[in-house]
Amino acid sequence: MKNQETEYKFSAYEIISKKRDGEKLSDAEIKWFIAGVTAKTITDYQMSALLMAIYIQGFDTAETASITDAMLYSGKTVSFEEECVVDKHSTGGVGDKATFILAPIAHACGVKIPMMAGRGLGHTGGTIDKIEAIAGFKTALPLDEFKRSVLEDGLALIGQTKDIAPADKKIYALRDVTATIESIPLITASIMSKKLAEGANGIVMDIKVGSGAFMKTRARARALGKSLRNTASRFDKKMMTIITDMNQPLGNAIGNSLEIIESVETLKNKGPKDITEVSIQLAGGMVYLAGITKSHKAGIRKAKEVLKNGKALESFRDLIKRQGGDEKIVDDYSRLPQAKNIKEVQSLKAGYISAITCQEFGEHVVSLGGGRRKTDDVIDFGVGITIVKNTGDKVKVGETLVTIHYNDGQEKLVEGIAEEILTQNIKIKATKPKVLKPLIYDIDENNKC
Amino acid sequence: MKNQETEYKFSAYEIISKKRDGEKLSDAEIKWFIAGVTAKTITDYQMSALLMAIYIQGFDTAETASITDAMLYSGKTVSFEEECVVDKHSTGGVGDKATFILAPIAHACGVKIPMMAGRGLGHTGGTIDKIEAIAGFKTALPLDEFKRSVLEDGLALIGQTKDIAPADKKIYALRDVTATIESIPLITASIMSKKLAEGANGIVMDIKVGSGAFMKTRARARALGKSLRNTASRFDKKMMTIITDMNQPLGNAIGNSLEIIESVETLKNKGPKDITEVSIQLAGGMVYLAGITKSHKAGIRKAKEVLKNGKALESFRDLIKRQGGDEKIVDDYSRLPQAKNIKEVQSLKAGYISAITCQEFGEHVVSLGGGRRKTDDVIDFGVGITIVKNTGDKVKVGETLVTIHYNDGQEKLVEGIAEEILTQNIKIKATKPKVLKPLIYDIDENNKC
Repeated sequence: MKNQETEYKFSAYEIISKKRDGEKLSDAEIKWFIAGVTAKTITDYQMSALLMAIYIQGFDTAETASITDAMLYSGKTVSFEEECVVDKHSTGGVGDKATFILAPIAHACGVKIPMMAGRGLGHTGGTIDKIEAIAGFKTALPLDEFKRSVLEDGLALIGQTKDIAPADKKIYALRDVTATIESIPLITASIMSKKLAEGANGIVMDIKVGSGAFMKTRARARALGKSLRNTASRFDKKMMTIITDMNQPLGNAIGNSLEIIESVETLKNKGPKDITEVSIQLAGGMVYLAGITKSHKAGIRKAKEVLKNGKALESFRDLIKRQGGDEKIVDDYSRLPQAKNIKEVQSLKAGYISAITCQEFGEHVVSLGGGRRKTDDVIDFGVGITIVKNTGDKVKVGETLVTIHYNDGQEKLVEGIAEEILTQNIKIKATKPKVLKPLIYDIDENNKC
Repeated sequence: MKNQETEYKFSAYEIISKKRDGEKLSDAEIKWFIAGVTAKTITDYQMSALLMAIYIQGFDTAETASITDAMLYSGKTVSFEEECVVDKHSTGGVGDKATFILAPIAHACGVKIPMMAGRGLGHTGGTIDKIEAIAGFKTALPLDEFKRSVLEDGLALIGQTKDIAPADKKIYALRDVTATIESIPLITASIMSKKLAEGANGIVMDIKVGSGAFMKTRARARALGKSLRNTASRFDKKMMTIITDMNQPLGNAIGNSLEIIESVETLKNKGPKDITEVSIQLAGGMVYLAGITKSHKAGIRKAKEVLKNGKALESFRDLIKRQGGDEKIVDDYSRLPQAKNIKEVQSLKAGYISAITCQEFGEHVVSLGGGRRKTDDVIDFGVGITIVKNTGDKVKVGETLVTIHYNDGQEKLVEGIAEEILTQNIKIKATKPKVLKPLIYDIDENNKC
């Protein structure tokens, strides 16, 4: 195979060797390699070897920008030219429904938002799965229709199509089975190639940190934030990174319909404090990046305004209607898919809740059918878990800690989940915990803001 | 895929992660992984990721022994039980025909030799290709017939069958395209798994070092030697490693028929000094490891004896006859395939030869058809190059430096080769070079000898 490669401009073997030995790859080498992966002239096993070499030896800012560029142009791209459209991306967490709150808020403030989101796999849910709990909501629009809607209507929400950054899809699938997921440059390229292909000129990045997040430590979250901002700068895009806590589920609801309901409640100013706060911070950042305000603080003030005066709620109702969904769900939650049964899980101890695990709740909802283990699993929108008592709350014996929404035939499964929640997922201590973890850790922006 | 793997004892993902992070893998983990590669339950891209992690993070002596063991038992094995059969292995070089000299020498001294050898690919020729220059020589024997011949006749020479260490074949093919060839533990496992599967209880290892060898530096050659001896000790096998020079071709002949002729000449005590010396050193080591003498030195004395008295030559003649070959070639070289034409390449300068490159001569012979670029290339036995003037020799303008043996239609190719030899491959200086490189650098044995 080495001999055949001499026909081409570069040699896959030589490129792998260089990175293996810790040398820097050139822009041309990286682009040639990724083009080869997309065109299938470079094999999966060669890509895997390079991925492992990148994981161990690293990629600097220039190399990260090169691979991002290569992946970005592996498929179709959308451009909004000079129009300062702003998107938000989250690294994913349990119970994270912020998109459904911050997008209407930012939209109501005048931000144009080209939102392309993903489906869930494993313990974190997917934005597109959740919005599909609303009957009729179309998440597949042609790219030109998507672009028109963003420019004219100011907000469109669609699923990632296979035309967007196909190299990322292929490379991600390989990383997933070769233990090369958790590489900051590769995570950066995966996120940025998609966001850039979608045409965003400003991006607010919600980097979740904690037991239920992809980034387990603040140091890792900060490193990813820096890498993302550096890469955005190289592409002349504005970026704000906000590191937020994911040591317990965000909001109280986990599960597709339940999360839509909680989102609408939040837009009605009746939502949980944590999800309200995170959504306002992120939406404020979008308002600022769009140039509507001169600071993040001013953006936050504007965001609070449209949340309070109901304009954000109206924006969400309009979005649903525009994309063919049943907008009446905003006033009548019974129009959303619902599970048949509810089990109340009651505390066996008295005291204060000192910790609620995170990933495990995501996994419980997956086991009920509310998420996917395999990419072709069909989702049951109605099932889920609602957290009734939060960290720091006082509880008595027999008080309900969580409710489990399930369907007929799942009784045995639900018993098991309830037991696990009581014995392992919720910790109760005799004394009130002194300091609760903050919700927002760091807010940074790149030099393009 | 991660989910499916939980059904099994281990997870490929976890094993790759551990080595990626520089942790030590257990014997059970390594064996499970290699068994999965052989059974195709572990994919090529997962193996490639692990190979790169091993390349960068290393394998210690225990891990190297485990992967050797796993590869060794991936196919059939031959056992000679307590019988101290001794084999020789070379890491490969240009013009290396030592096997055809040392095997008859050691055999004539009473050593039982189970010799399985490989075919050539790239600039180094293969023992099996060379012996097949002799009409009728059968290099494929069933394993039981091979074993019988070694025990009864004392010497058999066959090609590696696909039944021997199939995991090595598969892993080597992956290493070859993923830039993970030059890993000392992986080289060790590749060599040792085959040699152990072939049943050798003692092995003399010729580690070539220099510009024409796989190991370019003495430090690398020593590291490989140590790793091989450590691994042999773990399997309770005797091993001697001899580091020999490969900065210029060994002997004067390069090309299949030409090398057989030079081997027979050497067995007739008329061969070049370097190949004679190296063959005696290695054969002496085999005599010593077989327990026939008490020291390597005494083994060398015995080797010189049988070379001088013609018993080694008779052993080679018998081997050819036993394996169905035309043994008359020993007395009549014209019975070997010959190229039609000979070109004498004459010096354009006067002075002393200061250096002869090595790999390039191997590549010239391949380009004439004497070797393989692809595994299915057919070999032209007759073509080759003979070196007439060696390093240190005085030359006049017009004196023949090398002869090129070629066939009709290759005139243009030969012109190009001749020019390259004169301008790049042979260096001539005005003054005589002071110190020539030694032929033998290091001789070491493990604690089982």
